[in-house]
Order: sequence, then structure tokens, then C-alpha cells
Amino acid sequence: MKIIVINGPNINLLGTREKEIYGKAGYEQLCSLIREQAKDMGVDVDIFQSNSEGAIVDKIQESLGSYEGIVINPAAYTHYSIAIHDALKAVSIPAVEVHISNIHSREEFRRKSVTAPACTGQICGLGIHGYILAIHALKGIQ
Amino acid sequence: MKIIVINGPNINLLGTREKEIYGKAGYEQLCSLIREQAKDMGVDVDIFQSNSEGAIVDKIQESLGSYEGIVINPAAYTHYSIAIHDALKAVSIPAVEVHISNIHSREEFRRKSVTAPACTGQICGLGIHGYILAIHALKGIQ
Amino acid sequence: MKIIVINGPNINLLGTREKEIYGKAGYEQLCSLIREQAKDMGVDVDIFQSNSEGAIVDKIQESLGSYEGIVINPAAYTHYSIAIHDALKAVSIPAVEVHISNIHSREEFRRKSVTAPACTGQICGLGIHGYILAIHALKGIQ
Amino acid sequence: MKIIVINGPNINLLGTREKEIYGKAGYEQLCSLIREQAKDMGVDVDIFQSNSEGAIVDKIQESLGSYEGIVINPAAYTHYSIAIHDALKAVSIPAVEVHISNIHSREEFRRKSVTAPACTGQICGLGIHGYILAIHALKGIQ
Amino acid sequence: MKIIVINGPNINLLGTREKEIYGKAGYEQLCSLIREQAKDMGVDVDIFQSNSEGAIVDKIQESLGSYEGIVINPAAYTHYSIAIHDALKAVSIPAVEVHISNIHSREEFRRKSVTAPACTGQICGLGIHGYILAIHALKGIQ
Amino acid sequence: MKIIVINGPNINLLGTREKEIYGKAGYEQLCSLIREQAKDMGVDVDIFQSNSEGAIVDKIQESLGSYEGIVINPAAYTHYSIAIHDALKAVSIPAVEVHISNIHSREEFRRKSVTAPACTGQICGLGIHGYILAIHALKGIQ
Amino acid sequence: MKIIVINGPNINLLGTREKEIYGKAGYEQLCSLIREQAKDMGVDVDIFQSNSEGAIVDKIQESLGSYEGIVINPAAYTHYSIAIHDALKAVSIPAVEVHISNIHSREEFRRKSVTAPACTGQICGLGIHGYILAIHALKGIQ
Amino acid sequence: MKIIVINGPNINLLGTREKEIYGKAGYEQLCSLIREQAKDMGVDVDIFQSNSEGAIVDKIQESLGSYEGIVINPAAYTHYSIAIHDALKAVSIPAVEVHISNIHSREEFRRKSVTAPACTGQICGLGIHGYILAIHALKGIQ
Amino acid sequence: MKIIVINGPNINLLGTREKEIYGKAGYEQLCSLIREQAKDMGVDVDIFQSNSEGAIVDKIQESLGSYEGIVINPAAYTHYSIAIHDALKAVSIPAVEVHISNIHSREEFRRKSVTAPACTGQICGLGIHGYILAIHALKGIQ
Amino acid sequence: MKIIVINGPNINLLGTREKEIYGKAGYEQLCSLIREQAKDMGVDVDIFQSNSEGAIVDKIQESLGSYEGIVINPAAYTHYSIAIHDALKAVSIPAVEVHISNIHSREEFRRKSVTAPACTGQICGLGIHGYILAIHALKGIQ
Amino acid sequence: MKIIVINGPNINLLGTREKEIYGKAGYEQLCSLIREQAKDMGVDVDIFQSNSEGAIVDKIQESLGSYEGIVINPAAYTHYSIAIHDALKAVSIPAVEVHISNIHSREEFRRKSVTAPACTGQICGLGIHGYILAIHALKGIQ
Amino acid sequence: MKIIVINGPNINLLGTREKEIYGKAGYEQLCSLIREQAKDMGVDVDIFQSNSEGAIVDKIQESLGSYEGIVINPAAYTHYSIAIHDALKAVSIPAVEVHISNIHSREEFRRKSVTAPACTGQICGLGIHGYILAIHALKGIQ
Repeated sequence: MKIIVINGPNINLLGTREKEIYGKAGYEQLCSLIREQAKDMGVDVDIFQSNSEGAIVDKIQESLGSYEGIVINPAAYTHYSIAIHDALKAVSIPAVEVHISNIHSREEFRRKSVTAPACTGQICGLGIHGYILAIHALKGIQ
Repeated sequence: MKIIVINGPNINLLGTREKEIYGKAGYEQLCSLIREQAKDMGVDVDIFQSNSEGAIVDKIQESLGSYEGIVINPAAYTHYSIAIHDALKAVSIPAVEVHISNIHSREEFRRKSVTAPACTGQICGLGIHGYILAIHALKGIQ
Repeated sequence: MKIIVINGPNINLLGTREKEIYGKAGYEQLCSLIREQAKDMGVDVDIFQSNSEGAIVDKIQESLGSYEGIVINPAAYTHYSIAIHDALKAVSIPAVEVHISNIHSREEFRRKSVTAPACTGQICGLGIHGYILAIHALKGIQ
Repeated sequence: MKIIVINGPNINLLGTREKEIYGKAGYEQLCSLIREQAKDMGVDVDIFQSNSEGAIVDKIQESLGSYEGIVINPAAYTHYSIAIHDALKAVSIPAVEVHISNIHSREEFRRKSVTAPACTGQICGLGIHGYILAIHALKGIQ
Repeated sequence: MKIIVINGPNINLLGTREKEIYGKAGYEQLCSLIREQAKDMGVDVDIFQSNSEGAIVDKIQESLGSYEGIVINPAAYTHYSIAIHDALKAVSIPAVEVHISNIHSREEFRRKSVTAPACTGQICGLGIHGYILAIHALKGIQ
Repeated sequence: MKIIVINGPNINLLGTREKEIYGKAGYEQLCSLIREQAKDMGVDVDIFQSNSEGAIVDKIQESLGSYEGIVINPAAYTHYSIAIHDALKAVSIPAVEVHISNIHSREEFRRKSVTAPACTGQICGLGIHGYILAIHALKGIQ
Repeated sequence: MKIIVINGPNINLLGTREKEIYGKAGYEQLCSLIREQAKDMGVDVDIFQSNSEGAIVDKIQESLGSYEGIVINPAAYTHYSIAIHDALKAVSIPAVEVHISNIHSREEFRRKSVTAPACTGQICGLGIHGYILAIHALKGIQ
Repeated sequence: MKIIVINGPNINLLGTREKEIYGKAGYEQLCSLIREQAKDMGVDVDIFQSNSEGAIVDKIQESLGSYEGIVINPAAYTHYSIAIHDALKAVSIPAVEVHISNIHSREEFRRKSVTAPACTGQICGLGIHGYILAIHALKGIQ
Repeated sequence: MKIIVINGPNINLLGTREKEIYGKAGYEQLCSLIREQAKDMGVDVDIFQSNSEGAIVDKIQESLGSYEGIVINPAAYTHYSIAIHDALKAVSIPAVEVHISNIHSREEFRRKSVTAPACTGQICGLGIHGYILAIHALKGIQ
Repeated sequence: MKIIVINGPNINLLGTREKEIYGKAGYEQLCSLIREQAKDMGVDVDIFQSNSEGAIVDKIQESLGSYEGIVINPAAYTHYSIAIHDALKAVSIPAVEVHISNIHSREEFRRKSVTAPACTGQICGLGIHGYILAIHALKGIQ
Repeated sequence: MKIIVINGPNINLLGTREKEIYGKAGYEQLCSLIREQAKDMGVDVDIFQSNSEGAIVDKIQESLGSYEGIVINPAAYTHYSIAIHDALKAVSIPAVEVHISNIHSREEFRRKSVTAPACTGQICGLGIHGYILAIHALKGIQ
Repeated sequence: MKIIVINGPNINLLGTREKEIYGKAGYEQLCSLIREQAKDMGVDVDIFQSNSEGAIVDKIQESLGSYEGIVINPAAYTHYSIAIHDALKAVSIPAVEVHISNIHSREEFRRKSVTAPACTGQICGLGIHGYILAIHALKGIQ
């Protein structure tokens, strides 16, 4: 099974950014954790990060035929990117949306996800461990 | 580690109710799955279901001192029970909210969770497998 | 044909409560009227009243297999009980929602029914006679 | 007792229009049913249909002194005709609003009735049988 | 100077309708008062009443070239008739909107006038005397 | 008959301020016009202007026993002064609200009057002539 | 192919009304243009205009069996006529909504179309040429 | 004089729950304080606590004939329980709503009380002392 | 202990104004009652009333160093005076907001208090007795 | 005449994506159709597609001096890209917005166009034929 | 060049009030800083502070002819004073609105400025230095 | 001190675009002005412009360690880019938001800034001079 992990804007600053919300682990650590645990589960995993909405849409489109599952943390774009929503709908690969923090206990505008309705499900508030649970879930769906 | 799984109104009708949304597995199957997998993870699990908001608040209060984690699917109460929100806040045991279906792709009123801000995180749309992922997450938090 | 009449909170105070809105007939009178007229129509009728949302959900669930029709006046719960909505949807027994007063000419918050979309239809403003019309309607549906 | 049944826009297309919502019975069948059943109840009934808001207001005004009850299905005008609301208020003949379909389980804008507050009560979702129940109710009010 | 007074739906029931709001004077009395006082002011006046939105739009269009001023009480249509708004804008004859009752101290939906922005001004709450004041005002504008 | 005319903030700048909206007549001209025409009608008139909400409330309170009618142009305070609303309600002297411009064809926030529900009626858009019409109306009410 | 062009309220004043918005061409010119160009396309065209919502609903109903396509400019009714929406839905003849001006760059209330969801598509802002494009489109659909 | 104090969900956790909001005093202390001070005032007092909305409605109904005053802290139910509102309205015993914390300086959703309009008055933000003030007030009303 | 009682606009008309809402006691009676009862409690009390928002802000600022507690009934200003809110926040003297009537059972706009979040607590609906309870509360806080 | 056709995100997946909404024709077919028909009309056409909002803004800016007309389908960006709106306004080349599907009969959020007010007009719901009609319209404007 | 600095309610408490928001500098320090720096820039400056909305309106009116620029910090009145807005509009002297704190990162109600649309521009969040920048800007405009 | 000036979409068209709003100075002139004045202040300045949200986020991230201050005009992105908000929050370099025009006196949607809460302050309406004031402010903060 081949899965792509897509990270949205500012996720690359993990560990340097608002640590009381996002935790102390750096972005590299997140990537290592995902790669190791995926390997243990027998899952092939690629990781992609971009600050650009268009680049994320491009990557989702390219996933068609290359990956059987998408783990996506659209970060800020979660709350307004209809373009990402449409891309996920268009390729219709099973996708799980992940948020490191609990979006329900932050600013009001972070509670609404424009992209989640185009995903199979959503995991939030469980830290970087949420990525691993998402891969688990995608394995189960397959 | 001891965990309680709390199911809200109408979850007991699983398998007989709107199967295209909630899947074909019956409530008994859900309970067995949870018990088996929890055992494999070395987690002691109790399961509780009630249609009564008051009874759910009672059970959350009683969890204090008895359980180290709560997996809760407040079902319909998710969307208006400030009483359950307050109970979870009051006991402050790590809690993960689970929804079998993707609440973001259903009726508008199901997209808002009143109880999630009082939990550590939320998992939705991943079927009954979501309960297992929640237990995983609680183990990680511990 | 077997039908259950389910009355929500404070309906049991009928006749003692805000008579200019709900009329002078007491709750016992309402029950007698329903029983007599149902008998005339050849319909077997049970009547249930509770102030508890959970108990009403329980009763709806138990109706499955026991009754062919539900006449329900969810009273105050009409306006917020997604739990009752879900229960009615789950058992999918033909159901008619009844309100003694015209909910459209009272406080704004009473105009919206959360439970009606889970029923076959709704009758309001026709006094306690509304219950009899609801039984008529259920006979017609059968 | 003399009653007028007033049908609003597009009701005359009954049976040819969106049958999954309004049923298979044609407008002529509806009229026959009403006439027959009214006769059985000893009620004199006239039936009027118009696509014009002004014509419906005219007819309501003319009812003063001619009819003791109004059964009205304002159809689309239900949701915005303050003119019909005012006419019903002005003549203050007992009136029952009828909707063939359950307006609570359709588009959001159909859930709000501008005309119902000017009626005695409302019946919806019980098909063309709703008209008969409305006549029953008006007999009871008399 | 030639002026037309246009009265909307249900104004013809004046005197028989909700007298605590609209006063005891009947429609005929209103017409006589307007005719007499207009004569005293040296103003030629025609009076028109219709329950039909379309007929009111027709009449406004026909006023072009025939009248130098419009006194209009759009009644219920005040609150939603963009068609009347557009007609008044299109002919651009000086127009004064009149309401017998104080629309600001009644139901919320009566406070908003869709037609007033297309008029020169508005007079409300001053009873049938408001019509006379409106004619005064139109004389002043001329 | 004794009447007080109360003008709110910035009315004293009339003639120097946004003339395309308020006209070319200066504040002194307005006062002269009111005094002359009132005299012709046999009405005793006092005129008061203040930029202070508190001073306007004071003046309304003092009117009790001194004046039989109030003509008030609360200007900017129209849209938020519950204090002026309460003062008018408290003294319950017949009052007519006047606006020089048509508040319905300006910024959205100017369409809502907080003070009008505490008055007998409202006149707007008819220029400074509106003050004279208001005195006329108060004479009629007496 | 036979098509009907239905024009709503005040379209007949074209050329005399707000020319900076609707252009200088008069209504007769519009009709001629449509007739000529339709002829060139080999399309039989009838044109109908009314200020009355009811008359427009009547005409839509009568189109059933007579026309294979509807070009409709509901003008002011665009924004509130659920009756026209329902009529278009009921007959389900391919229909294209046309607006001469760009409804998106005018008053806020003109941006919402209540009737468009019942049409195949909508063309706006392209002047009277929009009618010709609509006929083109209907030919393509056929 | 006999008074009942009714406490809603999670009040029983007082002293263990969010102390920075609700203070350090435990629930037992609250009960003792109320009992002592009531005794000093010559008032007979009973105290009831439940997490169940239905049980609270039951208790309010039973108060009829048994108590001359109700002190109620509906806690979370304050914000959505129309059932408790209706019960208080139905029995119409003088009632004072109490909140330990200042509901106006917390989350937005806590500022709105659904139950207060059915009470004589409301006291909030004055700690557990608020209960004593409420009893004082009820003595005054008697 | 020294306390200041600050009364907002129109409170000075107590007893002459809307008695069914505010009771029959006049303003002088209110002042006497407060002075007497305060004396009994051993509290030094000053009373201030103004119709001017600015004067109230001034008085709150001057309280700093002179008073240990503020009882404030901002009357109409309750609902919009951010200036009073800011003044109370700035001096941070313990303050209790009092309303004679139950603001929750009146017009919708009276339910929201802009000033309460800057106070320790709020008492409403308990008549002029509310002032005495507020002084009690301030004594308790000290 | 030289025209540029600008397609927004996911339009390149045409034919593979939600065919019941967007039709069966693939993106290549769309491009061929446009090129052929433009040729027939004697119009020089370039086609551009990008998933990136920034790239679309760049392209619009570059159109200045190169093209006399823009046909733009901003796809998902239609609903939130103020940047594209500003770019169209800045270059002020005649532009027609095109949508393949009827945006008025889909999800609520698709009914609002942020970009349309910066265009000359909009065509929607007429399939890929809409692009051809837009070119027609631009020719007419020239 | 002559400039007036107008400070609204509670600004005079600077340095004693919520220092984490407004900084430690006292009001006298603010005045000195403004006077010194203005002198350096060759600008004549007067400073005015009032807690009264009416007094601020008065002062703005009096500025006409006396000052060539206004620096205004309307403080709490920023968010609701249409009277100050109208006064600024009426005198049309170049004005710059200043806020010491960043109004965009505080309570929601502080984000909206009713007075800013009547000013040339606005500076916020830059501490007391904002006043100096505003004088700079006014010099530039001159 | 080293500062970066970041300009968002369409700012590069300055001088060619809506000059009545943005002034006549071209983008090159803006850059020269900034460079010159910064030099005079002894500040090292780099200028960056992009139409792409992603590129702006990239640039903000890269500023970490390279610049001590950010002057940002996010242009259209001001109103919806949570991604830019998050980037500014993440790097937490002192930042001042600048708008050339007064965003408070333009379209409603331009009044809300999504990015300002992540900045130290905001300057708007003061033309291109605003950039210079922002650099001044950043020097002061340092």
C-alpha cells in the first residue's frame, strides 16, 4: 500500500512555532516518526509540504494512480480552500484529514473545516500521533 | 490502564439504523470489537450506553478515580449538551470524542460539536474503527 | 392497528397550565378522549408521558415491533432534541407530530421543529382534537 | 356549514409535478375527494385555485359573510405573502393551513410559514388527506 | 397639480380590520377625506386600490405623464415588493410612502421597507391624516 | 397648544454640511421657518438643539407638564439611543420623529430607528418641510 | 424548435428606465432583435411580458406542450418568487434565466436568485444580447 | 415560609471543579451555608441536585403546593432547556435564578439564559452568597 | 465601608414611568430605602443619578480612592455603553449591576448587557430590593 | 480580436471528475471546441489553466496590452478570491465569467461569486457551450 | 500648522488602567510627548480630553476654522458613535484616528470602527507613538 | 536595523490601477520613496512583491533571522489569508500592516482584516506615506 502525507502552510515550522499549541517535536521529527511507523505497518509513505494552495492542489491531482490513500493536514487552508476540497473530491482517493491541535478549542474560525466534507474522516487534537492513526485508518479502509 | 467507552443516544440501535450512514455492524459487534482489541493492547475497558443526558453526566462524574481515559460518542448530544461539556471539563480525565460517520458531510447542524472543546481530540468518519484509534490515542497520552 | 401516543415534558400539567394557550381540558380528559375516539376507530392505543428526554428516546426505541404508528407531542423538546429526531429516524415507524397550540403564533423559538423532519407530518393549533386527527392520519397511511 | 378551500400557485399541476414529493393523485382527484368527503360530513364546500397572490387575497376578502371556515394551501406564497397573512387576519374566519408534503423535511426556505400565524392551525405532510382533516378540524371549532 | 393615491392589499377593509391598529374610519371615509382636503389645497386627486402586486405596478407605470405626484401605501407589499420599488424608480415621479400605523412599533418584519428607498420620503404612524400630509409634501416639492 | 422641537447632534451645522443630502437651508433658516409657520397655525413653539445625548434626555424629561407635543430629530442618536427611546416612553407626550433626508436610501445603518417605536409616528425624506408636517400632525392628534 | 421569451415586471419600460444600467435600447427594439435573430437561427419565438407574478406562473404552465424552451427574465421577481421557481420546476421545460445588467455588481439583494436553481442556467450582464445567447444555448440543449 | 433550592448538572462537583471560576467551597459547604442562613431568616429550606433535565422538571412540578419559592441554578441547562422554562412557567411559583460565576464574562454561549424569562429575577457573579440573596429576595416578594 | 450608588438615564422618573414594569415606588422612595437600609448595615452610601453617559463615566473615575464599592444601574446605557464598561474596568472597584425589572423577559435588545462583564455580578428583576441585595453582596466581597 | 480563456483549479480534470455535474467531455475536448469555434468566429484565442491563485492573477495582469477580452472560469476561487477580483478590476479588460454547472442549484457556498462583480457578466449552467457564448458576447462588446 | 488632539473616554486614566494593554506611560506623559514632538515638527498642537460624547462632538464642530488637522482617539465611542462620525464628516477637516492598542487582536466588538470611515486614515497598535505618526501624516496631507 | 517590505497581489500595478483609490504614484515610485526614506532613517530595507499567497508565506518564513521588522501590505489576502496570519504568528518578528487606502470607507468585506491580529499594529488610509510611518514605528519598537 502506498500513501502520501500532504502538509499545508507553516507545518514546516513545527517545533519553532507556538509550542504550547503544536508541541515541541520539530518537522523533521514528525517526518521520521511517520516514516518509521509506516514502515512497521508495511506501508510505503511519501511526505510533501507546501505553503502554496495551488501546489497542494497539483499534488492531490498527481496522486491519482500513484497513491491509494492521502493523509492531509491542510493547516490554514482547512478553513477556506474550496480548491483543495474540489481536488480531493475530483480524485476520490480515500483521504483522512489530520490536525495536530484540537481545532474545536481554539479561535472560532478554526472550528469550521471546508475540506473535511471531501475526506473520509478527520482526526484532531491528538498531536503528531494523529498522522499515525490516520495511516492505520487508511489501511483499514483498503 | 483502565478506560471507559461512553455511548450516547441511539448508538444501541447500530446495525438496525440508517445503515448507509452507520454501517452494517450491530451494537454487540461494536462492543466485542472494542473489548477484543483493547485486550490486545493491554487496556481494561468498560462500555456504557444511555439515551439519557443526565445518566451520561452521572457516568462521567463517576469516572473520576476509576478510569484514566474516556472514549465518548455523545451522538445527538454532541450538538447541544453543555451539561456533558461541563462534566468532561470538571473531571478533566483525558477524553477522545468519536463519531462513526463524517459529521462534516452530513446535515449542517451536525458539523458543530459542543462537547469536543472539552475533549483532548476528536476522531470522525472512520467507522467503528474510530473507537480503536481513540483507545490507541489515550494510551499514547498516558 | 396499535398506536402509541407519546407526550413530552409538562403536558401532564394540562388544564392547570397557561390555559389561554393550552385550553381548559385537563390531562386526564385528554387521555380519555384519545382512548374513546381511538376505540371508535378500532385502534388500540397506549399513552405515555415523561419529562425526561432520555425516557422518551427509550420509549420510541421500544415501540419497534410493538406499534404501527406513533403520535408524538415532544413539547419543549420539539425545539432542540436531536436525540428524539434520531430515535424517530432510527425506528422509522410512521409518526405524526402534534402540538396543541399554534407554534407559529408564539415565541420565535417555538416556530422551529427539530423533530418534525423525522416524522411523516405535523398537526398544530387544533387543540387536543389534533391528537384524534393524527390517529386518523396514521390509519390512512397504513 | 359552508367552507372554502383555497389552493395557491401550481397546485393545479398536481399529479404531473414532482410526484415523489406530492404523490400521484391529480388535481381533479383531489377536488373530487374533498367534495365527496365534505358531503359525507354534511359540509358545503367550494374550491378555488389561483396562481395570483392578488386573486387569493380577493377571494379571502370575499369569504367574509359567505363561508364559516377556510382551508388554505398557499403553496409557494406560504413563505413570503404578508398580503395573504394580512387578509386572513382581517377577515378572521377560522382557517387551517394545509401542506401536502412535510415542509420541515424539504429545502430550508420551505420550513418558515409567513401565513400560518394568521391561521388557527396547520397540517402538513399527510398528503391530500390533510385537506379532509382540516375540514374535520373546522367542524370541531365551529 | 394632479396626484394619484395608490392603496395596496387589504386597505379596502379599513374600518372592519384590526381597529386598534388602523383606527375606526372606514375606507370610504378615507377616500372622502382625501378628496375633500385635496380639493381645498387645489389638488386634483385620483384614488386606486388593488390587492394585486402586478396591478399596482401597472398603475404606477400608467402614472407617467398623467400625474405629477404619487401617494402610495403599499401595505403588505411594502416589505417585499421589489417590483413596486423598480416601478417607482423607473417612472421617477415624486412619491411619498404612507403607513397609517407606526410600522416601527409592530412586528419586526414590518419595520423594513423595500419600497421606501424608491420614494422621496415616508410618513408613518399618523393615521389617515398621513395621506393629507403626503399631499402637502408633494405640493411643496413641485 | 405648546410644542417643543428637539434637534440632535450636528443639526446645527445644517447648510454647511453635506448639502446634497440635507439641502442648502441653514440652521437659522430652519428655526425661522418653524417659528413662522407654527405661529400661522396658532402653535407656540420652542426649539432646542444639543449634541449631547444626556442633554436631550434631560430636555424630554423637562417637557412633562410644559409641552403638549414633541417634534424630535434625534439625528445620529436615532440609530442607537435607547436612553432617548426610554425618555420618550417615560413622559408619553405625543411625539413625531422627523428626518430631513430619506433614511431608507442612505447607508444601511441609518435605516433602523431605535427611537421611532417610542414615538407616535415618523416623517422622513421631505426636507425641512417635514418639521411643519409634524406640527400639523401633532395638532391633529390633540 | 419553438421557444417562449417571458419578461417580468418593468422590462416593458426598457429604454425609458435607468439607462445607465439597462442601456438605451427600448422594449420594442429588444423584441425586434429577438425575433430577427431567432428567425436567422430557425427558431420560432413568442414574446410575453407581464408585471404580474400570477400571470407569469400561468404562462409558464401553459408552455407545457407548446414550447421546447423558455428564456425568462423574471426581473424583480427573480429575488423572491418561489411561485415562479415552482412553476419552472413543475413543467421542467429547459429554461435559461437572463438579466440585462450584471446582478452581481448592484444592490446586495439583487445578487441572490430564487428562480435560477429551477433553470438550466443563467446569463447576466451581457445586455440585450443575453437573450440571443440564451436562445443559442437552448438550441444546443435540444 | 418553605423554599426549595434546585441545583442543576455538575453543581455537586463544586470545590473540585474549575476553582478559579466557581470558588473553593465544596458542595457540602454550600448546602450547610444555605441551611444555616435560611434558619436564621426563619425560612424552611430543602435542597435538591440532579444532573438530569427530566428530574429537574419533575421536581419543579412537585413543588406546586409544597413550596412558596424556588431558588434555581440550572447550570448548563440554563442555556437550552426550554423544558425547565416551561415547567417554571407552568407552576408559576416565585423563582429566582442564581449563577455562582458572572455568566456575562465567560464564553459567549453562557450569556444567554433560556430559563430566566420564566423566573422573577436573576442573580449572578456573587459566588455562593448569591443563593442567600435569592432567599432574601423571595422573602421580600412573599 | 463607603459605597456609591450610580443610577443611569430616566431612573429619576421612577414611579411616574411605566409602573407595570418598574413598580409604584418613586425615585425619592428608592433613595430613602437605600439610605436607611445601608445605615442599618453600617454602610456609608452616596447616591448619584445622571442622564448623561459622560457624567456617569466621570463619576466612576472619581470613585477611585473614595469608595470601596459601586452599585450601578446603567439603565438604557447597559445595552451599548462601552465607555461605562471601560470605566468600570479601569477603576476596578468591586461593582454590582442592578436592574429593577427582569431584563430577560422584555424586548430582545434588553437581554444583552455590555456593562455586566466589567462588574463582579448582576442582579435583576427583584425590584428596588435589588439595590439592597447588591450592597449586601459588596459587604460580603470586602 | 485576441481573447484569453483562463481556467481555474481542477478544470483540467474535466471528464474524469464528477461527470454528473460537469459532463463527460474531457479537458482536451473543451480546448479543441473553443479553438475551433473561435476560429470560425475569426477570434484569436489562447487558453491557460492553473491551480494556483497567484498564477491566475499573474496571467490576468499580463493580459493587459495582449488581449482584448478575457473568458474566465475561476472555479473554486470564484467564491473567495478577492485577489482575482482585484486583478480583473485593475486591468479592466472586458471579462465574462463562465461556470459549466449551474452554481445556483448546488451547495449554498457556490451561489456567491466574489469575482463576478469585477466582470462584465456571467454565464452559468450551460455546459462547455458557455465558453463559446462568452466569446460571442465579448465580440459583441468590442 | 495647527492641530487638535481629541481623546475620548478613559484615556485620561492612561498608566493606571490595564497596563498590559495600554502601556505604562501616564496621561501626562502622553501629553508632554505629543507637545514636544509636535514642537520639533513645527506644529502647533492643542489637546482635549472628555468622557462625554456630546462634548467631543462640540469640540469637533468648534475645530472648523481653528485647526487644519484632527488627531482623534475616540476610545470606546469608536465602536458606536455615529454622532462623532457625522461631526467629522460635517467639518471635513483631515482627521486621523489613533488607537494605542491593536484593536484587531482584542474583543470582537473592538474590531469595528464606526468613526474611521469619516477619517482620512487610521493607525492602531503602535502605542502612544501612534499619535506622533498621525501628526506626521497630517503634515504630509497638508 | 534590517527590514523587509512585503507587498501582496496587484500592488505592482500601482499607478495604473483605480487611481482615485490608490493615488497616481506608480509602483517604482513607491519603491524609490521607501528606499530613500529608509536610508535617511538608517534602516536597511528589502522590498518583495508577489501575487501568490504561498510565495508570501515562504518569504515571511525566510525572514526569520534575516530581518528585524516586517512591513506588510497583504492587499486582497488581508481579508482571507489565515495562512499569512499563521506565518506572521509563527515567526513573531515585529510586523506592521499597511493599507494605502482607508479600508474602513470601502466595500464592507474590506473592513475586516484576518492578518492584522498577527501584527503589532496597522496603518491605513495615509497613502504610500503609510509605509514610511510603518518603518518609523518599527524603529520605535526595536
